[in-house]
Amino acid sequence: MTVLALCDHPALLDKSETHSLFSSDAIARARHIVNNIPGGTGAYSHSQGIRACREEIAAGIEARDGYSANANDLYLLDGATPGVHMIMQLLLGSEKDGILCPIPQYPLYSASIAVHGGTMVPYYLDEANGWALEVTELRRQLKLARAEGIKVRALVVINPGNPTGQVLSEENQKDIIRFCKDEHLLLLADEVYQENVFAENKKFFSFKKVSRSMGYGEKDLSLVSFHSISKGYCGECGKRGGYMEVTGLDNDAKEQLYKIASVNLCSNISGQILMSLVMNPPKSGEESYKSFQQERDSILASLGRRAKRFAEALNKLEGVSCNEAEGALHLFPRLHLPERALKAASAIDMPADTFYVRKLLDATGIVMVPGSGFGQAPGTWHIRSTVLPPEKKLPDIISRLSTFHQRFMDEFRK
Amino acid sequence: MTVLALCDHPALLDKSETHSLFSSDAIARARHIVNNIPGGTGAYSHSQGIRACREEIAAGIEARDGYSANANDLYLLDGATPGVHMIMQLLLGSEKDGILCPIPQYPLYSASIAVHGGTMVPYYLDEANGWALEVTELRRQLKLARAEGIKVRALVVINPGNPTGQVLSEENQKDIIRFCKDEHLLLLADEVYQENVFAENKKFFSFKKVSRSMGYGEKDLSLVSFHSISKGYCGECGKRGGYMEVTGLDNDAKEQLYKIASVNLCSNISGQILMSLVMNPPKSGEESYKSFQQERDSILASLGRRAKRFAEALNKLEGVSCNEAEGALHLFPRLHLPERALKAASAIDMPADTFYVRKLLDATGIVMVPGSGFGQAPGTWHIRSTVLPPEKKLPDIISRLSTFHQRFMDEFRK
Repeated sequence: MTVLALCDHPALLDKSETHSLFSSDAIARARHIVNNIPGGTGAYSHSQGIRACREEIAAGIEARDGYSANANDLYLLDGATPGVHMIMQLLLGSEKDGILCPIPQYPLYSASIAVHGGTMVPYYLDEANGWALEVTELRRQLKLARAEGIKVRALVVINPGNPTGQVLSEENQKDIIRFCKDEHLLLLADEVYQENVFAENKKFFSFKKVSRSMGYGEKDLSLVSFHSISKGYCGECGKRGGYMEVTGLDNDAKEQLYKIASVNLCSNISGQILMSLVMNPPKSGEESYKSFQQERDSILASLGRRAKRFAEALNKLEGVSCNEAEGALHLFPRLHLPERALKAASAIDMPADTFYVRKLLDATGIVMVPGSGFGQAPGTWHIRSTVLPPEKKLPDIISRLSTFHQRFMDEFRK
Repeated sequence: MTVLALCDHPALLDKSETHSLFSSDAIARARHIVNNIPGGTGAYSHSQGIRACREEIAAGIEARDGYSANANDLYLLDGATPGVHMIMQLLLGSEKDGILCPIPQYPLYSASIAVHGGTMVPYYLDEANGWALEVTELRRQLKLARAEGIKVRALVVINPGNPTGQVLSEENQKDIIRFCKDEHLLLLADEVYQENVFAENKKFFSFKKVSRSMGYGEKDLSLVSFHSISKGYCGECGKRGGYMEVTGLDNDAKEQLYKIASVNLCSNISGQILMSLVMNPPKSGEESYKSFQQERDSILASLGRRAKRFAEALNKLEGVSCNEAEGALHLFPRLHLPERALKAASAIDMPADTFYVRKLLDATGIVMVPGSGFGQAPGTWHIRSTVLPPEKKLPDIISRLSTFHQRFMDEFRK
């Protein structure tokens, strides 16, 4: 944000006071960016984004994956959201066009498919198995959809999962990639939580890296990877910065996508700059490196502790079971509610999870989101919580939630 | 932008050096904004935008119009573009839903209608009469569309016009408002060029002000007004800031619109802040007032001089006629091309205006946009030019354009 302040008000770069207010590497980066945007941060950029920012991001992807990335394949976005809409617009011509989507899922996908007139083809994550993504389930749902005349165009995978928090293993990712190659599906990889992996035995691998490591090039796999500045350690969600890396599309589709991007002119320049900084954080030897590293590590470690602690607390509640969050920023515990609670909800025509979270909100002020907003296996009820409350507030939140929950269960037990 | 820099890096607000780098009113405004966004510029806001920014904008609208405005009616946007998409999404359910759009028009409207599966119902601006918007033409096209079974939902009016530059008279606006009221059409008022009025005998009136001055309230007229920070004197288009003011919609439509906004979380906070500053510029007595006023007036006056000078130069060219730009930032001259030029274009399957601008680009490096991208009366050809080239470069551009044009006409004369 300090770099951004300098880019927005570049006259500061020539003032002596600036050196006492900003680090030398922040000043150098701002100067580099300002030199590459002659129109300043207030001018439109190329519809795919500022070339210099895309080059920085491509370099960051290469450093992450160990495989080449091309600035021409990048579309800088106002967060990842507009990229999902653009791809859905590209893929969906009628309700006969389908997209395989996980259940539960971040509801942007179902909303975007509905808006663009397509059909969501659900596949269920296996809750009993840590929200695993089973390729057998993908095959089963694909076959069912095709039998109904749906032309399935793409597979959405959210890794780390939202709202489910699972981190896919490399082997699992390979199976998914083979499935997409064999079935000619575009793989839409929502990788916005790539920095948020807590589980010690898990690591994030981008689908691009895994596919390249299998020897698959652009001809073998069509892949869109989404990333943003809204998660990770920075969480600058209000700045609306994001990108998608689009590889393996044919030229017609690429032209169409560029046309779609052009209608919206360009994404906001501040978000573009921040995205390029996130993919190229301060490096060893630079003035801000140490403080950056400390801050990043402490934020990520704290989020990991919060996720663990909150999951443990949830698992202690009567009738609640919660998978460990291996990554991302959410928990998605299952509620086994008493029969009378289900009836009380049904009597006022409300899903049981909504009934529960409304009562929770009224009694405690704690906001959780009903699982029905994300989709869930029929007959099951869940709630989604973030792990974002400050660590020092967590004991109090857990205590209030536990008290509420016990009273709720007692009230509806018989 | 100085206020924005302080908001992005609020630690500066407490440094003594800051007072020598920033004006006192910029510091005060930044402090006010920062106090109203506890999460900082990097957090999501309400999906309609930061309340404090919406209140500033509502106050700005009230000051402009002399009629009340409500922060609840405002949606802050990444430029005006996403607002147009949101409204089209709301209005268009099938190709039987139509939108009355001017020809020529800024092609966002045709693109957005196509994307959302509706039908564009064109109405033609009267070039021979200074691109006038005739209500008789609206009635004629509405009747034709209805006869074809199209349910016309809304009327798009761009005032000042893009790419045509006409500024509507208040009387004309009243006729348009009555037409929308009588025919139950939502009026979509693209008012992004409201600061850019050059003609001395013309003045911008918002459709909201005119409708209220007629005694029409929310029950009489459904109206959406779009504005942005991309034009006017500031032209901060890369920041992607905008708003729409939505009045006179029923509650169902409002709820649906809010749902659409929620899917996209929120617009970028920098754009929100800048939009609130544009609608509440420095006031008399504040430290920056004088320099702000001078800069604004000099930019607007220069744009006016450029528009006038460029139109005069175009009218001197053989076979070119150009209406005066009363406002906005464009000229849309008509080309009367020799028969042989039309045939040469047709022989390579290219619209004649595209043929002309390609040759212009190759010969001079000057970019103009073919009128066919904006729509034009059948059998007529136009080009669109902005009036944005720096004033000192204008003589050279005019000279190169004139030389090219004469050669082109000579080449295809016989």
